Amino acid sequence: MERLLIRNARALDGAPADVLIENGRIAAIGESLAQPAGAAGRCTTEDAGGALLLPGLVEAHTHLDKTVWGMPWYVNKCGSRLVDRIDNERQWRATSGHDAGRASLALGQAFLAAGTTRLRTHVDIDTDAGLRHLEGVLATQAQLADRLDIQIVAFPQSGVLDREGTDALLDRSLREGADILGWLDPCAIDRDPAASLDVMFALADKHGCPVDIHLHEPGEMGVFTLELMFERIAALGMQHRVAISHGFCLGELDERRRDAMLARMADLGVAVITTAPPSRPVPAVMACRAAGVTIAGGNDGIRDTWTPYGAPDMLERAMMIGLRNNLRRDDELAVALDCVTYAGARACGFAEYGVQVGARADLVLVQAGNAAEAVAAHPVRKCVIAGGRIVARDGVLV
Amino acid sequence: MERLLIRNARALDGAPADVLIENGRIAAIGESLAQPAGAAGRCTTEDAGGALLLPGLVEAHTHLDKTVWGMPWYVNKCGSRLVDRIDNERQWRATSGHDAGRASLALGQAFLAAGTTRLRTHVDIDTDAGLRHLEGVLATQAQLADRLDIQIVAFPQSGVLDREGTDALLDRSLREGADILGWLDPCAIDRDPAASLDVMFALADKHGCPVDIHLHEPGEMGVFTLELMFERIAALGMQHRVAISHGFCLGELDERRRDAMLARMADLGVAVITTAPPSRPVPAVMACRAAGVTIAGGNDGIRDTWTPYGAPDMLERAMMIGLRNNLRRDDELAVALDCVTYAGARACGFAEYGVQVGARADLVLVQAGNAAEAVAAHPVRKCVIAGGRIVARDGVLV
Repeated sequence: MERLLIRNARALDGAPADVLIENGRIAAIGESLAQPAGAAGRCTTEDAGGALLLPGLVEAHTHLDKTVWGMPWYVNKCGSRLVDRIDNERQWRATSGHDAGRASLALGQAFLAAGTTRLRTHVDIDTDAGLRHLEGVLATQAQLADRLDIQIVAFPQSGVLDREGTDALLDRSLREGADILGWLDPCAIDRDPAASLDVMFALADKHGCPVDIHLHEPGEMGVFTLELMFERIAALGMQHRVAISHGFCLGELDERRRDAMLARMADLGVAVITTAPPSRPVPAVMACRAAGVTIAGGNDGIRDTWTPYGAPDMLERAMMIGLRNNLRRDDELAVALDCVTYAGARACGFAEYGVQVGARADLVLVQAGNAAEAVAAHPVRKCVIAGGRIVARDGVLV
Repeated sequence: MERLLIRNARALDGAPADVLIENGRIAAIGESLAQPAGAAGRCTTEDAGGALLLPGLVEAHTHLDKTVWGMPWYVNKCGSRLVDRIDNERQWRATSGHDAGRASLALGQAFLAAGTTRLRTHVDIDTDAGLRHLEGVLATQAQLADRLDIQIVAFPQSGVLDREGTDALLDRSLREGADILGWLDPCAIDRDPAASLDVMFALADKHGCPVDIHLHEPGEMGVFTLELMFERIAALGMQHRVAISHGFCLGELDERRRDAMLARMADLGVAVITTAPPSRPVPAVMACRAAGVTIAGGNDGIRDTWTPYGAPDMLERAMMIGLRNNLRRDDELAVALDCVTYAGARACGFAEYGVQVGARADLVLVQAGNAAEAVAAHPVRKCVIAGGRIVARDGVLV
């Protein structure tokens, strides 16, 4: 039996905490745990030195396949409309030799080094690239499987209805390894929301898979799309299977209407995944939670043709969520941390998660006095444990 | 004569650049500069290894005196109104033993280590503390004078009209070392904007000093304050002597009204200093620049009783400015960098600035391919030169 005993850590509530890991799972948590009797020789001990103990971090929305992380700088001269960025990227990917396997592995490893152990990534599926990007990310998923739990969303970045054959490619993607069906702006991109959503839900229903939709649509257009989705979720019994990524429209409503929408979402078990962009309206974290809607955090793309920004660091993302939502008190920053830990795992459906006996032993030690400091200062991770093994120290993979 | 020759750097335009520094000033810039003849023995050479050469960074709005940087974490349980934060802080400062001298030195040094060589700090002046905080920051100013050029704003954080004796303390502050008169929300805090601004401008006129006002006032209230200021600037000949910090109201106007306000500001030489908070409306960087208004960047408070956030890193602040203003293209990120370099120096009136012959030799070497990468990735500074001497390497003071 493989054992690891973490000593001298502190739990989020400030209490001293030791953690005993056996065969990749948390076997015990408590103060001053003893080494298991009769197994001393086979138990490695790790002194946390008083560091804060966090569960492995959760990235709920990124695009591993399209990053240039670790590669030469991408000079961005792109126009500012959504369609400019979509077309620019698809053409660049077709001609630049950019490789989704290499890119996703580099960025996945960087996420792991910074303590992310569960990650949902959207992978572009389109009629130019076919399943090429998916194949690359599947290879990364397999290579990192014992350390980084990657969920793959088959994502039609260029839209579905207007590009014949995309639905068949999504269907194939879900047969060949994608876990979740992604989608994009049924009004603004597909131009026929009822037809678009019918195709989406039919595919999800066929594969019995969850859905995660990029909803950039602003204001009343976005609200209309949400209403069309709610009707279909109820009709098809898709409760607790749908996540709304972005959902900018929820940041534009007055409180009364927003809260009515959120109440409906709570009822249907629809989660929200926010990247908390500083330049867009965003779903308010505190309002979602008050309404009983799970809200998780993600980076969106990291250093790609869309954006020069981002870092594979979910504590930094928690800080961005805190800044965007004007969270300042310590108890509020703990909520930002929750968005990239427990709420993230709930939104994505990652199982056996958390600092609890029986869970997969994914843990992060960070030199911070409490959750608020971990978020605001987001120091380099002292130690990352994934699947029961130490995988990184001081921000570097071991 | 003290000489330093920096070799093998790259200028912002990508061209190879060597820099010869003599007695703390830039003596020559060019490709493959030779060591000065006959002075070889006394010239130190620094190999930049192809790093990007930036001018020393400029922090245009911070509060060195109130930080807990490098001290135990401040647990924030404060209410969310502006007056809650003001009162909470004043009481905490009176009772906690917090020392403005020690705090400002710690944060000033951290700024320097990250390449900031010019800095404007607002120092709280109020009837509880008197000039105590100013004395602490004056000591830091003196101690760092040859490396970090600190401008001190005498800032009535608790307001003026309602707290008798504050105006006299500001008067004394300006006699005893403060460089600039600060002010705060003439409507929202002082409750009598005409009287408040009359006191402010009379004090500035008496001391012949510039003004930098914290204008948090939203919407039409803020616009009204701006109009009252414009009238007085014109009447008193205070053109090119006034900066508006925050100016959130400018982020709330429709384009036509906003541009009319900006045109007036350009005409009066009123600068804008933005901290680009993700949760507030902000003056649009590109609109300010298009109108001919100088706009600079600052952190505001860093890890204090107001906010847990912030870092003494002006490249990270440039990133926040870029994110808040949705700047994505390389040429747009170069604008974000300008806010914390040349535009910052112009807004604050820092003289002899920049990568040019004759300027004070304040330089930063950073491992980035261009301005955009320096902003988005903001890597640890490879080398910081201040007043002609190497003061930090790899983010650590030497």
